[in-house]
Amino acid sequence: MVGGGQLARMTHEAGIPLGIRFRLLSDTPQDSAAQVVSDVVIGDYRDLDTLRDFARGCDVITFDHEHVPTEHLRALEADGVPVRPGPDALVHAQDKGVMRARLDAIGVPCPRHRIVADPADAAAFAAEGDGFPIILKTVRGGYDGKGVWFVRSEEDARDPFLAGVPVLAEEKVDFVRELAANVVRSPHGQAVAYPVVESRQVDGVCDTVIAPAPGLPEERALEAQGLALRVAEELGVVGHLAVELFETRDGRILVNELAMRPHNSGHWTQDGAVTSQFANHVRAVLDLPLGDPRPRARWTVMANVLGGDYPDMYQGYLHCMARDPQLKIHMYGKDVKPGRKVGHVNTYGDDLDDVLERARHAADYLRGTIVE
Amino acid sequence: MVGGGQLARMTHEAGIPLGIRFRLLSDTPQDSAAQVVSDVVIGDYRDLDTLRDFARGCDVITFDHEHVPTEHLRALEADGVPVRPGPDALVHAQDKGVMRARLDAIGVPCPRHRIVADPADAAAFAAEGDGFPIILKTVRGGYDGKGVWFVRSEEDARDPFLAGVPVLAEEKVDFVRELAANVVRSPHGQAVAYPVVESRQVDGVCDTVIAPAPGLPEERALEAQGLALRVAEELGVVGHLAVELFETRDGRILVNELAMRPHNSGHWTQDGAVTSQFANHVRAVLDLPLGDPRPRARWTVMANVLGGDYPDMYQGYLHCMARDPQLKIHMYGKDVKPGRKVGHVNTYGDDLDDVLERARHAADYLRGTIVE
Repeated sequence: MVGGGQLARMTHEAGIPLGIRFRLLSDTPQDSAAQVVSDVVIGDYRDLDTLRDFARGCDVITFDHEHVPTEHLRALEADGVPVRPGPDALVHAQDKGVMRARLDAIGVPCPRHRIVADPADAAAFAAEGDGFPIILKTVRGGYDGKGVWFVRSEEDARDPFLAGVPVLAEEKVDFVRELAANVVRSPHGQAVAYPVVESRQVDGVCDTVIAPAPGLPEERALEAQGLALRVAEELGVVGHLAVELFETRDGRILVNELAMRPHNSGHWTQDGAVTSQFANHVRAVLDLPLGDPRPRARWTVMANVLGGDYPDMYQGYLHCMARDPQLKIHMYGKDVKPGRKVGHVNTYGDDLDDVLERARHAADYLRGTIVE
Repeated sequence: MVGGGQLARMTHEAGIPLGIRFRLLSDTPQDSAAQVVSDVVIGDYRDLDTLRDFARGCDVITFDHEHVPTEHLRALEADGVPVRPGPDALVHAQDKGVMRARLDAIGVPCPRHRIVADPADAAAFAAEGDGFPIILKTVRGGYDGKGVWFVRSEEDARDPFLAGVPVLAEEKVDFVRELAANVVRSPHGQAVAYPVVESRQVDGVCDTVIAPAPGLPEERALEAQGLALRVAEELGVVGHLAVELFETRDGRILVNELAMRPHNSGHWTQDGAVTSQFANHVRAVLDLPLGDPRPRARWTVMANVLGGDYPDMYQGYLHCMARDPQLKIHMYGKDVKPGRKVGHVNTYGDDLDDVLERARHAADYLRGTIVE
């Protein structure tokens, strides 16, 4: 797996029971996954020779993030290394312009959008619809709210163009909430769909995920799952695909983003589903039959733990574990920095209010924003 | 953790979500746990200097097996290293003579037993009860049926004395079945008890575990859990304690063996309990509050996968995963040798016959004793 973040850490954890040998390409030995994996290569994923050395002896390559240059992935494929997901699929998660064009072509509903050339063009895009505000995004390099601008005027629209990367303009969707449809697809085309979840964001960062999305009509859930399965098939995705969605005030489902790897909106599956997204990603990448994606509890809630004032989590563990013996804590071994995602917690049960309260309490306590 | 077997492998897996740094002392880099852990020291656990070097920088030491010499553990404690379980507790899992004497002293029911000096003394022991057959065990060094002899006559009783280790004689208990009571205890005395399970043995090796033990009257289950909790407290156990029990034809519960580490009879907890034995062992050893030991399903069955004719498990995975998408496979990364424990599977559900059939099928198919 290329990339030493928490997704690789949790993929390794899920791969241990399958008896597979897991090799990691990590920027540093201190990275989240590098702390827990035996076979670690330290190197830069932007360097093709490094990737080639890493790939030697691997049966298949997969990813913790979308940042490996597409041309390097094509070179690895040309070398005969199985790359899953392959570059022709992954490019849709790397380049928002390519993604939007492709989703348009296969008729998947998206926010109104087009590539814009400069602030004046962005203003023209706004005028073509309901006017400002609009959203501007660099087509490459963004994540967790980075590379995304909420723009209220033409003057406001300068920053996105500074990086010299093409800029995508999108309408500001009047959404009720954000949903995510997570699916996993294997090389010979088997696919499974997890229950559609509600994803609550704070400051552009995923904060809480509720599985399944409360009050979502079955018809709309099936529509979202079907849409995600179709995207996976049409784009030739292998592995986990997260489709981030807007549920609009007028009852439509629009695609916000795609991620082709285990995803924050699927972390609940570690404790809430028969087979976790990480285990199914591993199974897909190895072309093994996929595991049951069904939930094990009526409700599962995931809450991200952000870094706060406590550099040491041990005291927080004492309180949270004693308060809630059913709490599932997943920390990433990262140095605590304010606002950084350093872990998450999962709770499950029959009563959504209780399950939500327990998850929020633990996440807030571990961050240090509450003290009892 | 001292020892690189599958118990360390699965303890590491369970420790990853807690963000702990896990250091392993392993005989070889190929050992089951050494394949998946980042921080591995290769060395001999029988050598005190090796143990001391290993322990430097560890907050606490725990074990994958009971074979570290008791005097080395005392030396580590004298150095100021927290050893959990400590030598005063662990000696009861290392030395069956010490264990029996202690259980007698605290009034825990055991098979009739005494240390015997030679074959003639063994015959005298038999004559004091119902005669042959009896069981002879070396007090140290046995596991999985090794170091245990089923003895039908005085002539039969020679082998156990050849090792020069004291020999314990025990009556052959007329048992209906074997049970196991698994409990976990933390340094400040918090303890949790898992449901009592039925453990089915084949040729002295654990074959199938059913949780909870079918048809066990609640009163007897509570007696077994209470007995295990009392043993843990009286012996000062820290971490996981497995108490292997005989359920006799006349309705009594007798202690067969003790193990002070995660145990084969607790593997079902990985997929069948809110908190696995491995996670709770880690929490106990770190003096963290313990997790909920309650079951997540009506029935969970664990079946051991023994090595058979297939050196490569991949083809077996294809069939078993496709047949049963809910199957949970746990392989140890060990070279397959006939009869060697190389993994286990867990299944769970509401219908015991179905859950048992699925587990047995997968274990038999992966071994190669069935082909469809």
